[in-house]
Amino acid sequence: MRQSIPQLEYICCMLYKDTTVAALATPPGRGALAVIRLSGPDALNIAARCFSGTRSPSEEPGGRVIYGRITDQEGQDIDDVLLSVFRAPHSFTGEDSVEISCHGNPLIAQKILQRLFQTGAHPAEAGEYSRRAFLNGKLDLAQAEAVADIIHASSEAALRGARGQLDGLLSAQVGRLREALLKAGSLLELELDFSEEDVEFVSRVELLASLEKSAGMLQELAASYRFGKVVHDGVHVAIAGPPNVGKSSLLNFFLKEKRAIVSPVPGTTRDLIREEMTIDGFLFILSDTAGLRDSDDLIEQEGVRRSRAICREADLILFLSDPGSDGTVLEEEIHGLAGDVPVLKVRNKADLESGPDGMLSVSALTGDGMNVLLERMKEATLAGWQYSEQGALVTSLRHRDALLEASSALERAREALESGMSGEFVALDIRSGMDILGEIIGKITTDDMLNAIFSGYCIGK
Amino acid sequence: MRQSIPQLEYICCMLYKDTTVAALATPPGRGALAVIRLSGPDALNIAARCFSGTRSPSEEPGGRVIYGRITDQEGQDIDDVLLSVFRAPHSFTGEDSVEISCHGNPLIAQKILQRLFQTGAHPAEAGEYSRRAFLNGKLDLAQAEAVADIIHASSEAALRGARGQLDGLLSAQVGRLREALLKAGSLLELELDFSEEDVEFVSRVELLASLEKSAGMLQELAASYRFGKVVHDGVHVAIAGPPNVGKSSLLNFFLKEKRAIVSPVPGTTRDLIREEMTIDGFLFILSDTAGLRDSDDLIEQEGVRRSRAICREADLILFLSDPGSDGTVLEEEIHGLAGDVPVLKVRNKADLESGPDGMLSVSALTGDGMNVLLERMKEATLAGWQYSEQGALVTSLRHRDALLEASSALERAREALESGMSGEFVALDIRSGMDILGEIIGKITTDDMLNAIFSGYCIGK
Repeated sequence: MRQSIPQLEYICCMLYKDTTVAALATPPGRGALAVIRLSGPDALNIAARCFSGTRSPSEEPGGRVIYGRITDQEGQDIDDVLLSVFRAPHSFTGEDSVEISCHGNPLIAQKILQRLFQTGAHPAEAGEYSRRAFLNGKLDLAQAEAVADIIHASSEAALRGARGQLDGLLSAQVGRLREALLKAGSLLELELDFSEEDVEFVSRVELLASLEKSAGMLQELAASYRFGKVVHDGVHVAIAGPPNVGKSSLLNFFLKEKRAIVSPVPGTTRDLIREEMTIDGFLFILSDTAGLRDSDDLIEQEGVRRSRAICREADLILFLSDPGSDGTVLEEEIHGLAGDVPVLKVRNKADLESGPDGMLSVSALTGDGMNVLLERMKEATLAGWQYSEQGALVTSLRHRDALLEASSALERAREALESGMSGEFVALDIRSGMDILGEIIGKITTDDMLNAIFSGYCIGK
Repeated sequence: MRQSIPQLEYICCMLYKDTTVAALATPPGRGALAVIRLSGPDALNIAARCFSGTRSPSEEPGGRVIYGRITDQEGQDIDDVLLSVFRAPHSFTGEDSVEISCHGNPLIAQKILQRLFQTGAHPAEAGEYSRRAFLNGKLDLAQAEAVADIIHASSEAALRGARGQLDGLLSAQVGRLREALLKAGSLLELELDFSEEDVEFVSRVELLASLEKSAGMLQELAASYRFGKVVHDGVHVAIAGPPNVGKSSLLNFFLKEKRAIVSPVPGTTRDLIREEMTIDGFLFILSDTAGLRDSDDLIEQEGVRRSRAICREADLILFLSDPGSDGTVLEEEIHGLAGDVPVLKVRNKADLESGPDGMLSVSALTGDGMNVLLERMKEATLAGWQYSEQGALVTSLRHRDALLEASSALERAREALESGMSGEFVALDIRSGMDILGEIIGKITTDDMLNAIFSGYCIGK
């Protein structure tokens, strides 16, 4: 259901170019200030009609702040505000825009929005400002997606990843790969035009090498998603093990608070307890689970069932035992649940007795060994990836899938080339790879795709 | 412990004039934008040192918006931002100020604040921006207090009241009264200077009339607090009555949702249920209480005890009964709890049977009579007060107490005058009244008083 580009542009024009939209841009709630954003061809006129001050926004140059009042339809003051005026293309959306800074009371923001809607503005949809910034060429698609990631980043690492993407690290790398394919593909297509003359514009050996190199780079980039995902969403850690080995004590130690109820009775934890912590700027989401054992208690059985599910979905399993426990059977089960996810074997209650085996020994009571454990947790999930300012990081499943799909297209092109098929087929696969890369940065888009991307945004962004 | 004005100014200078402060101005949470405010003599320089853009805030004229990046101490980008530059005295605080608009992620706001603090800014205290606006003469004290009220207003009426106060309605009225006293007091004091010559600069008859008039106006203004309080805080309504007359059904009808559990069993409601609704822009806070009866159930006993407390603190009591119930004994109790607060007698379950007495009949089931009830609730609490654009409304206990205290001082002056005491004593009382009025608008303040007022503000305002 891919629409052609002219058709798409037409739809975008219909939907967006003519309307002026408004929404609250700051978080809901009370504070000193709230900011309402107005963007579109009629933004300055609408603002001018709702505003009374010494100067009018419709006559101001861009980049100016003016003080005055927003009045309702009867001319009554709603609030005193500062208006910041931006003129196309020098605004976030690339359109004429006004930011209205009022007192931070939801009632006031609502009254001002109401007034703007009465005067011709429309309520902005989720992600509409970023979408307009994309459609007006202020950001490419991967950058527009990074805007939402920046807002929702909940760790330093996630913020840096999103920052890099907004700065165009991923876009630049994808763009370079796409250009190389464009060049090769164009030469091949040119050959086809001259097919009767049997010339070769591009050496088959070089083309083969270039396709192989490009496919390799695409796969490498796609592989960065393994880190990108944990950087973006955090590392999901399951704390698992037999009952009464101190799983909840470990969680409490990490969080420095008595979050989970701890008792000497095996089976104390039944409900899943999930909390977050940060190690060196990386988010770790810890799940304390019910101890894995057969139980007659129905509630505990359900707890154990959920423990297993958590282990299956984790990025890292901390497999806890204590000096007295025999975990051999359980260890097999845990490894079965883990698949290729790392399992860190930890012996808790090291304060009670120390076991001279290869296991990591900690004490949630005294804190012994905890720093080593934290370090190991980081290593196990983030080793092999160095954050660099230059390196692009794939944090979105959509991007990873597109990269792998593009890489497959290049593989097909390579096979076609090797089996001596006509340049036509090779060129088709190269173009397909190129188009898929184009989807990442928005050179090729469909309305459905844009809807899917931007509908997850918050209103006002 | 009142400090003299020069001393006070010295303290203020010490505390405020030299420092530059920063705080988050928008509500906490995530959104498209967050705004950080920086204010003080060094605001433009501090901003310039943390900012990298095509232009520098320290070289910009006021009222300009510039685009660029806030960088950390290592020169790494924190976020791309818009800086709005304001130059003294043309800012909210009257000082040089910068508003930094960044992406609405708490992590980013925190990093930017950290950077500003490293560069010489101090964390703003609660209410510090409003306090600075007051100290720099941008707002008088009553107006500065209205800023917090505007942010916290939770109904249209509260918003209008606060808006009027910020616009100076109360200040103007207090100012006029104070000036009249100033004039009379000065003439009396002048007489004292010429006491040997026994002249009379001010007619005793006129002075008496003027004092009487002023005291009357002060009392009238103070009396507006009865409405001001409910406009500002909302009308607290206790829904009381015997068990099982449909108190919870009435609450649910008002809220248009099944908030309270309703059952045919008397004593269903035990915990207090408190919810808000708005009638014509006025906030009403409804408390559904346990039915008043003697009970052996300990939880219900506690519920009944709380019901009585709620009735004692209410601004209005809805006393419910149903056609079958005999409420004579209870009625006496309710009126005892009510004191001079209005009690509306309502007969619920009018759908079951209609009682042809003077009581208001409603049905929470069919909605019959509900509009009349809402109208009566408004009348009972707000009758006699008309909102006018010109009329000042006292919404603060501090203001009401000051008005009454000033009025007492004038009464004393009048008595002194009538009993033929020396002008000296009369002048003393008039000056005392004047000073108390001065406290409302901040002509006379102490540091303790300012601390008490502004410490209730949110940070960033």
